[in-house]
Parts: sequence; structure tokens; C-alpha cells
Amino acid sequence: MPGIVTLTTDFGAESPYVAQMKGVLRSIDASAVLVDVTHTIAPQNVRQAALVLADICDRFPADTIHVAVVDPGVGTARRLVYCRVGEQVLLGPDNGLFSRIAQRTSPTTIIALEEPRYWLPTVSDTFHGRDILAPVAARLCQGLDPRLLGAPVERLIELDWPEPRITGDTIGASSIAGVRITGEVIAVDSFGNAITNIGDRHLARLPDRSAIRVVSAGSASEIPLVRTYGDRPRGTPVALVGSDGLLELAVVDSSAARELGLTVSDRVEVRGGPT
Amino acid sequence: MPGIVTLTTDFGAESPYVAQMKGVLRSIDASAVLVDVTHTIAPQNVRQAALVLADICDRFPADTIHVAVVDPGVGTARRLVYCRVGEQVLLGPDNGLFSRIAQRTSPTTIIALEEPRYWLPTVSDTFHGRDILAPVAARLCQGLDPRLLGAPVERLIELDWPEPRITGDTIGASSIAGVRITGEVIAVDSFGNAITNIGDRHLARLPDRSAIRVVSAGSASEIPLVRTYGDRPRGTPVALVGSDGLLELAVVDSSAARELGLTVSDRVEVRGGPT
Amino acid sequence: MPGIVTLTTDFGAESPYVAQMKGVLRSIDASAVLVDVTHTIAPQNVRQAALVLADICDRFPADTIHVAVVDPGVGTARRLVYCRVGEQVLLGPDNGLFSRIAQRTSPTTIIALEEPRYWLPTVSDTFHGRDILAPVAARLCQGLDPRLLGAPVERLIELDWPEPRITGDTIGASSIAGVRITGEVIAVDSFGNAITNIGDRHLARLPDRSAIRVVSAGSASEIPLVRTYGDRPRGTPVALVGSDGLLELAVVDSSAARELGLTVSDRVEVRGGPT
Repeated sequence: MPGIVTLTTDFGAESPYVAQMKGVLRSIDASAVLVDVTHTIAPQNVRQAALVLADICDRFPADTIHVAVVDPGVGTARRLVYCRVGEQVLLGPDNGLFSRIAQRTSPTTIIALEEPRYWLPTVSDTFHGRDILAPVAARLCQGLDPRLLGAPVERLIELDWPEPRITGDTIGASSIAGVRITGEVIAVDSFGNAITNIGDRHLARLPDRSAIRVVSAGSASEIPLVRTYGDRPRGTPVALVGSDGLLELAVVDSSAARELGLTVSDRVEVRGGPT
Repeated sequence: MPGIVTLTTDFGAESPYVAQMKGVLRSIDASAVLVDVTHTIAPQNVRQAALVLADICDRFPADTIHVAVVDPGVGTARRLVYCRVGEQVLLGPDNGLFSRIAQRTSPTTIIALEEPRYWLPTVSDTFHGRDILAPVAARLCQGLDPRLLGAPVERLIELDWPEPRITGDTIGASSIAGVRITGEVIAVDSFGNAITNIGDRHLARLPDRSAIRVVSAGSASEIPLVRTYGDRPRGTPVALVGSDGLLELAVVDSSAARELGLTVSDRVEVRGGPT
Repeated sequence: MPGIVTLTTDFGAESPYVAQMKGVLRSIDASAVLVDVTHTIAPQNVRQAALVLADICDRFPADTIHVAVVDPGVGTARRLVYCRVGEQVLLGPDNGLFSRIAQRTSPTTIIALEEPRYWLPTVSDTFHGRDILAPVAARLCQGLDPRLLGAPVERLIELDWPEPRITGDTIGASSIAGVRITGEVIAVDSFGNAITNIGDRHLARLPDRSAIRVVSAGSASEIPLVRTYGDRPRGTPVALVGSDGLLELAVVDSSAARELGLTVSDRVEVRGGPT
């Protein structure tokens, strides 16, 4: 089977830098299957890329190689790594890019990319995606043993991923009204849906699913939890558990980001029980 | 031969949702060839996607599977369908997406996607593109008999596709000046060319091709019909029959949408014969 | 090995016109590997596309076919050509698109596309990318002898590519302060880095690399030459030799285009030696 290589960068939509990486990959492994994840990560926004990688990587077949290039420290002492998490392989700078995935599942192998024989003969100071990561990915597709790439690394660099806070007592009828989950918006998708860090597993702590509601998010208050967008009329603010298992805020057939003024880091508060 | 799957969505340019669909597709059929048509359909604009699908589908080899996800009703009672039209296969919600193609050529087979064994084991309420359409497309690539997907459906849901009106008498020299075709702008491309619903076959009703002119379109009047953009100097408004056989309005080396203020639904009137 | 075809156009991001070309390519050669370089060349900006092609083409395997469609003269007397430069193949209108590559390496073969038997049966007046270039590319992938495409052509149409001027004497300690290189910005990438036409080989004419500095570029003056972005604190203007061997102006973790007001054609002056 040909290897699959996905690409996630902040190079900009349809940047020729991406094509340079693809050319290098194909020059070494002509049969590699290349999949663009996105190249419109906000410039040098490692956190956003880390969320995207966590969203997509488990959807791919085992042994897919995910190359990520959001690399403000290119050419400095920062490390490039090979990282195996579950059945997926990650390649990129060790700057937190893989820390969202690693928070969920611990990497089984981390190796520093140190062995120049697997890189392009000439390595620039400003484009390691093309000169190091692309040739290493192509060689891994061809079956290169990752242990030849360099020395093992103990731990990845971690970013801080704030968890929602749950306050109040979730047991006992008398106190239900006081239970609340406080989280935040972690991403806004292209529909303007605001995705929060509040997961299905947090909502499960509330006793009655039919009574869950968002009490504070941007300019909105008292948004009901529904099953899907089409459950309410056009223009209605709704909250729902999205396809990635996270609570998201939407406005039916419109943009929650625009209508409710929601943006990344905005606080979202959820309550269960009667009003 | 590996199967070809095209993707047309409103997920936004380079959305990670697209990558999730590609991951699912490849996890089931590693050899499928995936072609992005566009992911920048305006959010939930079924009509725009229907036009794009009609433009591109016949250009692909027989048995190409065109997956379309513009799906404001996701998770509600709306139906997902398999649809065979000519030698092409269409997969998506039955909300009018395929009605522009079906207006041209009647589907030979329509089947409702009802059999969960061909879907992902867990189906979200908000992302059937990933959870139902992608796995079904991959299984069709592998040769699955479409009759196993569900029950036959009699008719697709149709959108209204307004036809140009032709008024006046096209025969007899004395009345030529009175003949007119009234249509509308149905799309604006990335060059700002305004594409109308007036086709070559409508223009053929006018007696003298060299005398055809657009007499009303946006802020313009009296635009001549030419053969190609380069036939007139930079900045000149021209009308021509585009590569899809439809009359379009252009401004040489510029944008007709911007220069003439043209947008979708704008009325366009064409006359033949002397001024 | 399947053939590789790259696509560079001004059709706009995710234009369905690109999908039409891909459909035609695959209908003739189902196994061709298609790589999008970019479709966001500014409309009809032949010069920008010529720079992109020169940047990417040598990164691809031998015999890759680079199809370029930036074609303001489509349907007029302008010529379409096959052009072999080094180990790469170029296909597109002869309007200067290949003149940046040809300035570096002379083409060994240029052939006019004149033989309609290798085109689509019906050729529109406005979309030769789909009707001529795509089928010719697919047939070249299948091994068609390019000499069958048409008659040899002597020379490509050339654009003017201004070279930096070097003034002052580079030898002799007394005159070092007077040496200067005057070039210009030729491209701005998606990070806002301003790439100039001043190459490593021009800078090598200055005696002491550690003392090279940009003395005039947009609103900036006295920008130091560094090795990579991370060598200076966030927000600092820096000059460096980018991954393509050209001097570029950047602002660390920000946009030089925005911060320094730099745009294509802006004059950039470099000096060596003590201030």
C-alpha cells in the first residue's frame, strides 16, 4: 500500500510553499498519497493547529503520517520530532503542535530528527518543512525505520489546555439549580459555529439532559441544548454537541460568531436543572 | 481501476471537516482517488452547489462518484440519496442539490441511504458527510451494489430553475427588431464574469448572430456579442457564450460584477436584429 | 510510473473550472497524479505566475508536466506551447509564463500546440485550459511523443526581468562604504514577507557578510541581515536569504508588507561595510 501523508500548515491558502513540499515528497516517493488538511492556520498559531490535528488524525488509516508546519522557531534551537501516538505518526516542530493529541493519548515513541542523511542535501534556515520534514515523511512512507532518524526524546513540549470547571453539587435534587460548567470557546469554524472545550462527558455530569442550557455566551443568554441545527427555525441560537463530541454554539442557517459576537477564548457557562 | 470520488461542500476553503471525510474514505478504500471540486459554496446555498455539480459532473470518467454536502437539514427527516444520472453517480442530501443535473438528464436510479451497516458505527447528528456519505462512497468504490443501500425512490426533490422567456416573432424581417430574450444572472465566477441562464440554444432563435446584443444588464446597455475576451480592448464590456454554452457578461481584463454592478438574479435582456 | 501534472492558474481558490480540467485529465489518463500549485494567481498576472513556476518546478521529479493557465489572450492568435526545460515539462500559453524559468535555463524543446487530434473534440473560445492543455497533458502522461503536437518554435515570448544594479567598487578597503545593491520587491508571500530580486550571488559581491544591511525598503531603514526569523525578538524587522536563495524582508512573527508598507516593485537598497 502507498503511504498517506497529510499536510497542515500556516502557509496560506494555495501557497506555492506547499507545492514545493509536495514536489520534494514525490521526488523521493512517487507513490505517496498526499492529503491537504489545511494551510490556513492563522500565521504561527500553534494552538489552533494543535486542535485541528487532534480533530482529524484518528480519522485516517493506521500509519498515516501527519506533517505539521507551524514553526515560528524555524532555524533556531527548537527540535523537530517524529512522534507515534496510537496508530498515527506525527512529524513537525516540538513546539506544542502535538500536545493536544498527546493530552488524550500518550505517545509511544518520540524521536528527534537529527540525522541529516535523510534530509535534502542542502537545508535552508527558514524552510525545514521542505528541506527536512518532507524528505523524512517520504522515507517513512518507503519503510524507513524511525529509530534511524535520531535519538529518543522523553517528553514533548506541552501547551496549557484549560479544562472546563464544574461547580456545585451534581447529586441531590435540591441543589440541581446551582450546578454549572464554565468553559470557553476554543475554535470558530467556517460556518461561524463556536466550538467550546465543554465535552459530552462534562455535560453527562448534569442530571437531566433535557434541561441543559447555556446561560452565558457572548451576547446570548438562555440558549437551549438541541440535537441538530434543523431542530429550530432559521435565526435561532442553539447549543448542541457537535460531530467531535464538543458543545458548540450555533445560530440556525447563520453564524453564531457574527450574531452573538463569539470569538476564541470567550467564556461559556452551562447550567442544568430548572431555571 | 481505483474509484474516483469528487467532493463539493460549503465547509469553507481548506476546512478540516473535509480532511475528516477524506480520512474516513481512505480508511475504507485506501486506493480511492479524491478530487476537490470546491468547498467554498456559500453556506447552505443549495442552488449554487446544484449549478456547480451540473457544470462539472460530465467532465469526469464514467462511474465517478460525486459527493455533495450542502445540507442545512442535517439530522432532520431529510433523505440522503444515491442517484445515477447518465454515467455519473451522485451522493448527498435530497434537497435539490441534484435537481439541476436531473433537469438536463433524468436519473435512471435513485436509492435512499437507509442501511446503517454501510455507515460509520457511530453517526453524529450534525455531520452525515463524514459519517454516512464518505463510508458509502468508499464502499461504492469497492464495488458495493447500490441496491443494498436502501429502497428505491421515485423522484428527487426539485428546485425551480427559471428558463429565459423569448418574446416577439423570430420569423419575418419586419419584426426582427422586436425579438427579445429575457433571462437572469445565475452565477458570478472568480473573474467577476456574470453567467446567465441564456444558452446557445436560446440565442439560436435569433436570426442574425452578428447582430445580437445585450440591451440591459446591471448598469450596462448595448453590449456586443463577441467570440472571446481578447476580441476587444481592456476595460470593454462584452457578452459571449462561455465554455459551458451559456451567455456570460464580462469586462475585458476586469470584473463585470464590479464594473457593471451585476449579481445573481439580475435581469439580462438580449435582442437580435438592427438597433 | 503514473505521470505527475501540476496546475497553476488564476481561476480563484477552489474554482469549479479547475475541477473541469481535472475531470478531463482523468477521463483520458485515469492514473495521472494531479498536484495543485496555486489557483490564486492575481487575475491575468502572468508575471506573478512566472515567478511561482520558477520557484516550484525544479522541486518535482523528472518529467513532471506543469500546466499553467494565466491566459488573458485566450481564443486570440496567441500560441499555446509545450516547452522542455531541464528535466521538467511546461504547458501553457506563450505569453511570458515560462520566461522566468527560461531566463535561468534555456529550453531544449519548444513546440506549438497545433494538432487538434490531441484536444477535446469541441474546443471553446474561452477555456483552452480544459479543452486543449488538459487533454494534451493527459496524453503526454501516457507517453505521447511531444513532436506530434505541432511544429517546433524558435523562441518563447520573454518578459523583462529587471536585475539588481550593483554600484561602487567591491575591492579595496577604502571604498567599501560606497558599495550598494539596488533591487526591488518581486513578491509578497502569505506571511507578508517581501521577497526581492537580490540573490545570494549578488550579496556575495559584498566583502563582509556580517556587515550587510538593508538601508532602504518601504518605511524601514537599517535592517540587519540575519540567518533566520527566530534570531531576533518578535516585531523586529529583519532581512534574510530565504529558502529560494533570494533576499527577503520580514518582521519577526508579523508581516513586513503591513508593518513596513512594502509591496511588489518597491525599491530595496542594500549596503555592505561599516555604517
